[in-house]
Amino acid sequence: MNVMTQAVADEEVRATAPYKLACSETRRGGRSVVEVGGRKIGGEHFALIAGLCAIEEREQTLATAQTVKDAGGAFFRGGAYKPRTSPYSFQGLGEAGLRILAEAKAQTGLPIVTELMDVRDVEPVLEVADVIQIGARNMHNYALLSEVGRARCTVMIKRGLSSTLEELLLAAEYVLKEGNENVILCERGIRTFETAYRFTLDLAAVPVLQELSHLPVVVDPSHAAGRRELVEPLSLAAAAAGADGIMVEVHPTPDAAICDGRQALACDDLTRFAERIGQVAAIAGKRIGAAI
Amino acid sequence: MNVMTQAVADEEVRATAPYKLACSETRRGGRSVVEVGGRKIGGEHFALIAGLCAIEEREQTLATAQTVKDAGGAFFRGGAYKPRTSPYSFQGLGEAGLRILAEAKAQTGLPIVTELMDVRDVEPVLEVADVIQIGARNMHNYALLSEVGRARCTVMIKRGLSSTLEELLLAAEYVLKEGNENVILCERGIRTFETAYRFTLDLAAVPVLQELSHLPVVVDPSHAAGRRELVEPLSLAAAAAGADGIMVEVHPTPDAAICDGRQALACDDLTRFAERIGQVAAIAGKRIGAAI
Amino acid sequence: MNVMTQAVADEEVRATAPYKLACSETRRGGRSVVEVGGRKIGGEHFALIAGLCAIEEREQTLATAQTVKDAGGAFFRGGAYKPRTSPYSFQGLGEAGLRILAEAKAQTGLPIVTELMDVRDVEPVLEVADVIQIGARNMHNYALLSEVGRARCTVMIKRGLSSTLEELLLAAEYVLKEGNENVILCERGIRTFETAYRFTLDLAAVPVLQELSHLPVVVDPSHAAGRRELVEPLSLAAAAAGADGIMVEVHPTPDAAICDGRQALACDDLTRFAERIGQVAAIAGKRIGAAI
Amino acid sequence: MNVMTQAVADEEVRATAPYKLACSETRRGGRSVVEVGGRKIGGEHFALIAGLCAIEEREQTLATAQTVKDAGGAFFRGGAYKPRTSPYSFQGLGEAGLRILAEAKAQTGLPIVTELMDVRDVEPVLEVADVIQIGARNMHNYALLSEVGRARCTVMIKRGLSSTLEELLLAAEYVLKEGNENVILCERGIRTFETAYRFTLDLAAVPVLQELSHLPVVVDPSHAAGRRELVEPLSLAAAAAGADGIMVEVHPTPDAAICDGRQALACDDLTRFAERIGQVAAIAGKRIGAAI
Repeated sequence: MNVMTQAVADEEVRATAPYKLACSETRRGGRSVVEVGGRKIGGEHFALIAGLCAIEEREQTLATAQTVKDAGGAFFRGGAYKPRTSPYSFQGLGEAGLRILAEAKAQTGLPIVTELMDVRDVEPVLEVADVIQIGARNMHNYALLSEVGRARCTVMIKRGLSSTLEELLLAAEYVLKEGNENVILCERGIRTFETAYRFTLDLAAVPVLQELSHLPVVVDPSHAAGRRELVEPLSLAAAAAGADGIMVEVHPTPDAAICDGRQALACDDLTRFAERIGQVAAIAGKRIGAAI
Repeated sequence: MNVMTQAVADEEVRATAPYKLACSETRRGGRSVVEVGGRKIGGEHFALIAGLCAIEEREQTLATAQTVKDAGGAFFRGGAYKPRTSPYSFQGLGEAGLRILAEAKAQTGLPIVTELMDVRDVEPVLEVADVIQIGARNMHNYALLSEVGRARCTVMIKRGLSSTLEELLLAAEYVLKEGNENVILCERGIRTFETAYRFTLDLAAVPVLQELSHLPVVVDPSHAAGRRELVEPLSLAAAAAGADGIMVEVHPTPDAAICDGRQALACDDLTRFAERIGQVAAIAGKRIGAAI
Repeated sequence: MNVMTQAVADEEVRATAPYKLACSETRRGGRSVVEVGGRKIGGEHFALIAGLCAIEEREQTLATAQTVKDAGGAFFRGGAYKPRTSPYSFQGLGEAGLRILAEAKAQTGLPIVTELMDVRDVEPVLEVADVIQIGARNMHNYALLSEVGRARCTVMIKRGLSSTLEELLLAAEYVLKEGNENVILCERGIRTFETAYRFTLDLAAVPVLQELSHLPVVVDPSHAAGRRELVEPLSLAAAAAGADGIMVEVHPTPDAAICDGRQALACDDLTRFAERIGQVAAIAGKRIGAAI
Repeated sequence: MNVMTQAVADEEVRATAPYKLACSETRRGGRSVVEVGGRKIGGEHFALIAGLCAIEEREQTLATAQTVKDAGGAFFRGGAYKPRTSPYSFQGLGEAGLRILAEAKAQTGLPIVTELMDVRDVEPVLEVADVIQIGARNMHNYALLSEVGRARCTVMIKRGLSSTLEELLLAAEYVLKEGNENVILCERGIRTFETAYRFTLDLAAVPVLQELSHLPVVVDPSHAAGRRELVEPLSLAAAAAGADGIMVEVHPTPDAAICDGRQALACDDLTRFAERIGQVAAIAGKRIGAAI
């Protein structure tokens, strides 16, 4: 238990919010800035997180990571363990995928964001991951949240498909309560009646979460949109709404991707894309940039 | 029946979209630009529509209209007939409200956007309105849609609380089918499980509607948000997503408003607000500005 | 203004519910029983309302009405004016349809339930209708609600696609406020993310509406289900949940129906269906039956 | 891998449904009847599953289990591990709770239904559970689903808060694919815009799941309703819709329960309740009864 949680345990908790550690009042000095591998997210620091939905093979992964670095991305994301609705779909390369991610990190210096789905995989994932992603389908997996709360690793929690903002903040509270202060929230679209796209990206969540909590808020437009034509307008919108970062999928040859290629940006387009995001982020008072 | 609808009636309609006139292919020459009272919406023209939720009294209305003009607004909005969930709530000033709107128009030169709720009010509303607004609760009121389809007046249709984009386009089709080509679509938030704000603003609707249809798309963030703190980030986000305009509520003393004051921007703040919107709209390739 | 509404206007309204006349406390003597043409709905009276989605032609309508009567139905429903999402779909026979309904009524003695969509059609509809139906798409059409509030006719209000129960009760309040006490509420399914059926029938609405209000509550499972295989289980469920009636669609040759044939029960099956509904209604403490 | 899964693996899978093993065509001989500890669920066998939301202490648990047995319940449910939205809420007694459940089973002979939340708890839970419940919040926890697929134990999967029926069947597929054929599906309410109750019970799910799949379908009305007044009408409705069983919460003194007491039926009321359910189930062609 660290100082912050100790303080809460010691004195009477006066906050009316049920998420005592995540709420804005806890952090009197303003909003949290999470620092990972020399990159910052939060405050004036806008982070571009980009990468592959699923790690498929080595060469492609290394090339994509280099593209992300060259475009000014702050983090490289890639899935080694993939939560799939069907047991017959590609489930990710597992530990082999983690090894490829480790290579990408060694080569580019970019910190790695990757998903953890099973409490029994914490150790191998922690060897590679700088940011452990808790996927939307696991936002209510309290065993997993508590486990990463005990790890020394930044945790990014994606909002569940039908989770309220309060529930998302309580999921963060499971992590914070175990002493891990490095939590990032991620809006990635909610389930509604509309069928014109996979999920409805809820950008009001950005200012509201920033009002309720001191934690940084990033947006993943790729999974909400489900197709690349929508990724750029929604990314610009997220930056304009004040998000602390965006997480997008890129692929050297999107249409050949095993998983979710329809929503990946082409690598060739990433630099131009990043520049436009940076322009809008600047109007919202933030700087995009990998180095500090 | 004008040329466009005639053409559709004459030849076999080959479009697969059920909204034959609203769909993108109908307008081969690109996107529609709607021109009203010397102002344009659509294409590169971004319109700021601002005004009062409900017309309450004369002095306040005239002052607000002047503020909107000074800030570079293209249209003045004000409700004379108000759709209220409860029969015991203020229902608007009716024709007295229309007369005040006519004065505001005479004084500022701004075209007027006002809501029509009852087919029997078409005549008095048409005497004042430059843009007739069909509210979200009437998006499925087909008698009303057909009636304004026969009027010589621009029509702005707000998306219903739980209407799909296809249903919104079919509502537009009811107007277009009667020969009225001047239709503007408006995203204003949909109903979801989230209770942290009144409605969930669906900004993916902007690029998707622009892909499916040639009609201009504006966004009303005020009603979705339900409180003014969220109006600016959501307005910036709408502009970044490529909207052809935004419609916001302002009030000289928001907290004293009879109706929805919680979501109104203060008049004093409108110029600064408009400037920020203009900066983001520029990045999205549009120019904000009343004059042409 | 009748005695009940007068009483509300005269004294200070103490009810905390915003729907003062619809709420349970207004009717101290228990739940309302609405009586129409010698049939009752509410209390221990369970009503089977059956008929055609749309009136298509005379012979078929008369035959269907006779089937409904023979099966013990209390009301015959049929649409002369049809609210259609697309302006290109069959919009109903209009006044010609009303004349056919009048014949069906003359022949069978069954009271008629039919939809009103346009305030300008009140007169012709009132000549035939015993129960005016306000469709889900018009639940927020306050001009229409007020108009039927001034008519001497029972009104059945269908819940909007995304309307809360409070909003439905406030829609009823618009009618009650004008002095019309004969209001029936109808649950017909709400819009959710699920795509396996057209709407999600919300049967919890039945006991909750009966708790909040004295008005009778019927259920329309046909439109929610969208296909006939689901109509019987959902009808039985509605009766078990305590509904005061159900409204279903039947057709002599469902697969040949112009409109919504997929969800219509076959006429041949109606007697057996009605018997099963009656068995379940009896367990819920109600009697099904046309005559009083 | 058992014969059924082997057959699927060996030959080309011709089914169009993505849930090859859960789909109706797989089980040519009709619907599955799951047998647990001498009780059957499915086909003509309707099961009443009742018990405590959370195991709180020994005497109360044993008394409640006896009440369930006396009322004709087929299974006793009780939570030792509780998924709670807040980390500060009571999380269940854990292994101490399992020991109390073992006593209840020894005393009454009733098979035990209890929730598993963490793959690391499989062993202790399997020592007591006859039916492992996968909660709504874990329906997408694929590691957990695969793990119980390898266990020799019946598995009841609750539908996620915003999961489609297809996703529920694919969750079942994760279990079936590992060779465990004993799967029960559970509808427990979905998240919608309505706030008058906690979740919207979706009873159309019952006939639709029975159409798509051979697996038994039970309904949990307690969690959807959130308060006991609604539990009986919704339970009757579930039985009328053709459910293969219901799972309800009972408590000796509901208002003193630590967790979810508002929705628990009183023990004193269970026998009368069970008789009414049995009457409706009989009309739907099923027999309620513990013994075979």
